[in-house]
Amino acid sequence: MPARPVSIDDIESLALGAWILGTGGGGSPYQGLLNMRRLYRDGRHVALLDPAELADDDLVAVVSQMGAPLVTQERLTDPATIATAVQMMEEYLGRRFRAVMAVEIGGGNSLQPFMAGALLGLPVVDADAMGRAFPEAQMTSFAIHGLPMFPLTLADIRDNAVIVSRAASWKWMERLSRKACVEVGSIAATCKAPRTGREVKDCAILHTTTKAIRLGATVREARRAHRDPVQAVIEAERGVLLFAGKVADVERRTTEGFLRGTATVGGLDECRGRSFAVAFQNEFAVGWLDGAPRVMTPDLICVMDSVSGEAVGTETLRYGQRVKVIALPAPPVLLTPRGLEHVGPRAFGYDLEFTSVFAP
Amino acid sequence: MPARPVSIDDIESLALGAWILGTGGGGSPYQGLLNMRRLYRDGRHVALLDPAELADDDLVAVVSQMGAPLVTQERLTDPATIATAVQMMEEYLGRRFRAVMAVEIGGGNSLQPFMAGALLGLPVVDADAMGRAFPEAQMTSFAIHGLPMFPLTLADIRDNAVIVSRAASWKWMERLSRKACVEVGSIAATCKAPRTGREVKDCAILHTTTKAIRLGATVREARRAHRDPVQAVIEAERGVLLFAGKVADVERRTTEGFLRGTATVGGLDECRGRSFAVAFQNEFAVGWLDGAPRVMTPDLICVMDSVSGEAVGTETLRYGQRVKVIALPAPPVLLTPRGLEHVGPRAFGYDLEFTSVFAP
Repeated sequence: MPARPVSIDDIESLALGAWILGTGGGGSPYQGLLNMRRLYRDGRHVALLDPAELADDDLVAVVSQMGAPLVTQERLTDPATIATAVQMMEEYLGRRFRAVMAVEIGGGNSLQPFMAGALLGLPVVDADAMGRAFPEAQMTSFAIHGLPMFPLTLADIRDNAVIVSRAASWKWMERLSRKACVEVGSIAATCKAPRTGREVKDCAILHTTTKAIRLGATVREARRAHRDPVQAVIEAERGVLLFAGKVADVERRTTEGFLRGTATVGGLDECRGRSFAVAFQNEFAVGWLDGAPRVMTPDLICVMDSVSGEAVGTETLRYGQRVKVIALPAPPVLLTPRGLEHVGPRAFGYDLEFTSVFAP
Repeated sequence: MPARPVSIDDIESLALGAWILGTGGGGSPYQGLLNMRRLYRDGRHVALLDPAELADDDLVAVVSQMGAPLVTQERLTDPATIATAVQMMEEYLGRRFRAVMAVEIGGGNSLQPFMAGALLGLPVVDADAMGRAFPEAQMTSFAIHGLPMFPLTLADIRDNAVIVSRAASWKWMERLSRKACVEVGSIAATCKAPRTGREVKDCAILHTTTKAIRLGATVREARRAHRDPVQAVIEAERGVLLFAGKVADVERRTTEGFLRGTATVGGLDECRGRSFAVAFQNEFAVGWLDGAPRVMTPDLICVMDSVSGEAVGTETLRYGQRVKVIALPAPPVLLTPRGLEHVGPRAFGYDLEFTSVFAP
């Protein structure tokens, strides 16, 4: 069976789980979820394709909504825009795609391939290139594996469309596509460099859609059973509780297409009298416990509502929220020396040697 | 005879005349001239094609080096880069060009089609879309005629390449291409929306290459005959002398890919005791005599060295230069109501009703 059907119940779980894997970013999945409910009501169902089922020369569209999470609250996501980016790429290449996949499984970007797939009649590959969310183009397993970074297509809602047909490096791809994204309003639908089936099987992070669905289901089950959903996630996903408290301060600014800032959490319960600060660029990057580095990218830093287990995004953090901060393990490829060059703390401008919360 | 050969002597005249038509911008033709001398020495000659010889369905590449004139003094023009932009467009369209033409005849951009043509073996069309130089994409006769503005290809020297495949308007095309240009260093080779032979014949400004060659020849002849070259240009091209003096002050800044500023000229000889100020965005836009508007875009405002008749660019203006400021007539299409919307003083942010120096 090459592709298994995905139920709307799976998608509800996916939205919940992907928001946790978003580590604060990837954009809230809420608008995407509303779109998927509507698309499913209209009879447009999407299938999930195991990467192993891809032929080596199949072509896969790798999509994401690019931009600053805060902007997604004003400029709502639209399935047609992401489908346009995919169709632009097909026209540019003169080839048809076999399937769609997310560049990042974290946040609303987990739903972008489902929206495109629903409109274009394509299955979604059970994989992504981050295993979480990250802010920049070169922060992918594809980049870590040294795959080519072009072409990229970018579409906005106004009939503007840009193709980055060549880029001198991953950083140049990031710069050129980011400037176009910022110019059209810091939000744009993108279809990244297309990947062959072989490349997906060798260089993507596999079965992360399934993982996000599982994670969401864990939270939903715990809620139904009146158990602590954060604790349920920690147990099911080998997570670590880093802090529990109340958001005391948020400093946040939208610059150059990113949402940057720092939040401070004051301790409650077993953390009373202590303080946890977490810095973000779209996603949470580094956390300090009482001023000392406690957790850092690429370990997943997830801020969750203490009661509901709902993830808290960098754009929705606000004073007074009761949250738990947990860490989840990063995909192994991100922990290699080359992986850390792309997504370790120094890639975000922090002069810290990476130490994992999960180090033995 | 479909295309007449252009001698290197013609190109020497073209560089001189186009710099005058550049009205301060279009980039200094000096680097382009050095490149053409070398290309001609290497046996690569270019022919000039009368637009009337184009078949209606011929396809013409419309090229320019985009960016801030000041930057061209550090990042030297390279024939290969402009040829790359043309080849990108051929690949994108899946069609071959019949000829190349300049988007603006003013300044170094008059030589860009010759550099591309020399490398690609294509003739240059005796026409452009401005009859002078202007800073922005929508300031062309093609835009005034309402022709489509996309696609556009943009190449830099590092193997970055961007295609603006659709734009919601001419202003959006300007914004998207400008941002890409600024990101790669405020200078880039571009191939604008391709034009059919029919469109060139109907909507371009015709025989401006010949005009620029003639203008340069007038200056060179006057020099040889020890006559006043500025006076010779005024006589040959129905120009008007606006001011003669010495540059007293230059305020200049490179922002968002443009060179902007104001220069003040203190009067000499018959202008003693008077003052002339001229504001520019790449090109000279408005001139004030003793504080009152005296000349404004689209009339051509040309600042010339009083002795040599060499044009003075907005990036080479400096304290102490002895200059004459003259006006030359604008192509009629720029003076229509629609033309003035695109290139009149209000298009540059000046709340002035256009009055021509040449008004009867």
